[in-house]
Amino acid sequence: MQILDSTLRDGAQAEGISFSVEDKIKIARALWEFGITFIEAGNPGSNQKDADFFFKAKKEPFFSSLCAFGSTRRKGVKPDDDKGLSALIDVGTETVCVFGKSWDFHAEKILGVSLDENLEIIEDTVKFLVSKGKNVIFDAEHFFDGYKVNPDYALSTLEVASNAGACCVCLCDTNGGTFPHEIYETVKKVCETVSVVRVGVHCHNDGGMAVANSIEAARAGATHIQGTFTGFGERTGNACLASIIPNLQLKLNMLCVPDKNIKKLTETARFVSEVANIKLNRREPFVGKSAFAHKGGMHIDGVAKASESFEHIPPETVGNERRILTSEVAGRGAILDKIRKFNPSAQKGSAETEQLIEQIKTMENDGYQFEAAEGSLELLVRKHMGKYKPLFELENFKIIGEQTIKGGKASSSAMIKVTVDGKEEITAAEGDGPVNALDIALRKALEGFYPNLKRVNLTDYKVRVLDGSNTTASKVRVLIESSDGINSWTTVGVSSDIIEASRIALADSIEYKLIRDIEDKYKAYL
Amino acid sequence: MQILDSTLRDGAQAEGISFSVEDKIKIARALWEFGITFIEAGNPGSNQKDADFFFKAKKEPFFSSLCAFGSTRRKGVKPDDDKGLSALIDVGTETVCVFGKSWDFHAEKILGVSLDENLEIIEDTVKFLVSKGKNVIFDAEHFFDGYKVNPDYALSTLEVASNAGACCVCLCDTNGGTFPHEIYETVKKVCETVSVVRVGVHCHNDGGMAVANSIEAARAGATHIQGTFTGFGERTGNACLASIIPNLQLKLNMLCVPDKNIKKLTETARFVSEVANIKLNRREPFVGKSAFAHKGGMHIDGVAKASESFEHIPPETVGNERRILTSEVAGRGAILDKIRKFNPSAQKGSAETEQLIEQIKTMENDGYQFEAAEGSLELLVRKHMGKYKPLFELENFKIIGEQTIKGGKASSSAMIKVTVDGKEEITAAEGDGPVNALDIALRKALEGFYPNLKRVNLTDYKVRVLDGSNTTASKVRVLIESSDGINSWTTVGVSSDIIEASRIALADSIEYKLIRDIEDKYKAYL
Repeated sequence: MQILDSTLRDGAQAEGISFSVEDKIKIARALWEFGITFIEAGNPGSNQKDADFFFKAKKEPFFSSLCAFGSTRRKGVKPDDDKGLSALIDVGTETVCVFGKSWDFHAEKILGVSLDENLEIIEDTVKFLVSKGKNVIFDAEHFFDGYKVNPDYALSTLEVASNAGACCVCLCDTNGGTFPHEIYETVKKVCETVSVVRVGVHCHNDGGMAVANSIEAARAGATHIQGTFTGFGERTGNACLASIIPNLQLKLNMLCVPDKNIKKLTETARFVSEVANIKLNRREPFVGKSAFAHKGGMHIDGVAKASESFEHIPPETVGNERRILTSEVAGRGAILDKIRKFNPSAQKGSAETEQLIEQIKTMENDGYQFEAAEGSLELLVRKHMGKYKPLFELENFKIIGEQTIKGGKASSSAMIKVTVDGKEEITAAEGDGPVNALDIALRKALEGFYPNLKRVNLTDYKVRVLDGSNTTASKVRVLIESSDGINSWTTVGVSSDIIEASRIALADSIEYKLIRDIEDKYKAYL
Repeated sequence: MQILDSTLRDGAQAEGISFSVEDKIKIARALWEFGITFIEAGNPGSNQKDADFFFKAKKEPFFSSLCAFGSTRRKGVKPDDDKGLSALIDVGTETVCVFGKSWDFHAEKILGVSLDENLEIIEDTVKFLVSKGKNVIFDAEHFFDGYKVNPDYALSTLEVASNAGACCVCLCDTNGGTFPHEIYETVKKVCETVSVVRVGVHCHNDGGMAVANSIEAARAGATHIQGTFTGFGERTGNACLASIIPNLQLKLNMLCVPDKNIKKLTETARFVSEVANIKLNRREPFVGKSAFAHKGGMHIDGVAKASESFEHIPPETVGNERRILTSEVAGRGAILDKIRKFNPSAQKGSAETEQLIEQIKTMENDGYQFEAAEGSLELLVRKHMGKYKPLFELENFKIIGEQTIKGGKASSSAMIKVTVDGKEEITAAEGDGPVNALDIALRKALEGFYPNLKRVNLTDYKVRVLDGSNTTASKVRVLIESSDGINSWTTVGVSSDIIEASRIALADSIEYKLIRDIEDKYKAYL
């Protein structure tokens, strides 16, 4: 099964995405290491930044997997004179992907050519590129919509491309509204009736079925699947390869990438999201943080007895992990599992364990939620087990928010004093609101003692007003997600004062990082 | 086609979800108004909070659509003596949904009963509930996994439930790993061979195909589809009804909700997400902010020539809107609808309307959301229409939050100066956190001028961090719900400073109340 990843081309058409050349190189390298067949990396004819990327990528080991994307020649222009085709050739990739029209409506109304002329455009373009030594993938845009209204014409565009030498004709569900059974029947028909080397599909997710559509295509005979690694793309996005690949490879025995790489699926998806600065949905199949997280009491009980009772695959197969969420729905068993991470011999019913469970339950009643805050939970367990001493002390702080004139902008500032090993540091910072000011001041005060904190970024900040009729005096729960570029962790604070809740979560975040660093450095002595 | 929404039951098992009773009532009302057949709202036998919800919901118009969820009786216990079944009956819903085992492995290894005993449990339970006058939906847990290894046994569990009087047997893909073609073939077989009243499905998204699986089931003969409205649920979530309903109703002509309600799909999905405090994915099919957003140049050009060239359905069909990302020119219709709530004669295209639309669009791009804040929207429309003059001015304020000694409690206080008709009032207050201090001080300063404010309580305060990328400096949206004991209204404020956002929403809340009072008092003169 050939896989073509278009994160760097169709993915770049997603709202909110803007890749630098460096970003593209990082992502291409990760996809290549994962074993993706083709990496569609840009449209050099329409975008100078994409052309620059191909130039810079020439010395990279992944260059041979790159594929440049472009349009068939413009109407009324010879292939030799078409700037887009020249750009495609100039970038020097072995494989190119060109799209053309296969829906009669689109050829006539959008492109503005006759149906015969459209076939000539396809034929000329493919022949020309083949004559220049390229492997040509022909993307039949809107193929499924076209096939519904004029099947003969849609099929003829494939015949023409194939006869002109294309190594693959890729059927595109450009508008993303086709159903799985339609995809299956159409692909089957194409495989049976058209003399093509290889049939591919390119699905969009407008109906919420792009993964299923790609899989149905594979079952019907397609051997080339296009998508984007984590599913982002124009509108609702492209078919998500991080779902398609494990479904095909682990369950339908269709080899997409080397078997040994499947366990890097989660890591690769998270890396691509990180570079793209798009938060990976925690519910993302296979690779999301919640994909193997169990919350319901019966589910937790079932998984403890036999993991296949509530898991479709073992999470480690794709490099993800099982998580037992600690919550009101779950019971003591889930909390015990957490404690055992640090103290494998912890026994249900022992005084130490019961005390800690009681403490956690009390905190949960107070509004804490540890299911999404494993950093704070680890600190709590450590404190309880005597595996903790404070790495800094917050001596005092003062935060001022004020608006001095009517209608003026409010400003916020924070003063803070900390001590580390008896040494004092006092500093101040301004911020966007009181919490931001406190965040900046605290990190500024500690960076002198712990330079590693410079690498830590907060990657998410969530506020939840808890239940209660006290409104602005209601308790709030603050969740902070931090990252040092390699690991990420989440911490929690609860208070009726949002500053206090944030301070608790911020302090936990910093302590968690510092303890991790100590563990890494002194592992041999521990 | 029957639709069962389990947002309040299976959805509550999603990581990060914790509904209050009030949240559940709001969501149930929205789902009922949208026309959902059954609203599965909790497990009263395992959770006291769920039992409380059913009790409170008794007086609500949606009560007749509610469905309580529970397990078949425990092993070795008579139905009469089973506490879970008693709880199911006590909540008083017409319909109940009970789950039982249909996978031989689960019956023997997880539940620990013989295969015959498992059938007796199902039979007893359904008969007992039917004898109490309930409509019983039988959820056949892990049906598809069970069917693969022991089809005769899996089918026999359905026969037993059906013969005992269940009005629907629902086939569950509990682990979420089944493929669309497997679902289709299995449902078809069940419909052909088992004498059941109605076949349903309940799909999970572990393979990324829950929407397609539900649709394939409907095509194979299922007439009852379970899911959660925006797809959240245990692990990767449940089948997303906001995708399934429009696919079935608009494209496969299967009626799920009254036709006139389909245009409220987007609004309902956004409301459910907002109450659940789960950010709706912008790429969510049909209802996401990017679902009809066009970025690629050729796409924008194509859509301008003919919208069907890059859209699978017209966005307004589901109450969403087309967005052209390079130049924001869309969505006027949706905003005009809102304006007409206050000014029914507002005309599209009039200079006044266009100006206001522009202003609202700018504010929405800044993070405002008026769907849940009609108090603020009314003020905005009033200001624009000249039906407003300020009833007080906030001259200045200063807020101090401090913790003076290590480990001490943080305190917050606010000083504030307001003017009303040229008269100044300066006052101060302490509060639980900076926002609460500001809230108390502002109301204290104004109560001397407007004694009616003493009757106003804030009944809800919600904070939503908008874009996560700036973390503690991210924009926040604050929603405040207020009540004077008779009416309630909601207002909104947005800023990167939580105090500023809260101040905006608080001020709107007070002004809205004061204007309402003036209207009531002087109605005869207006």
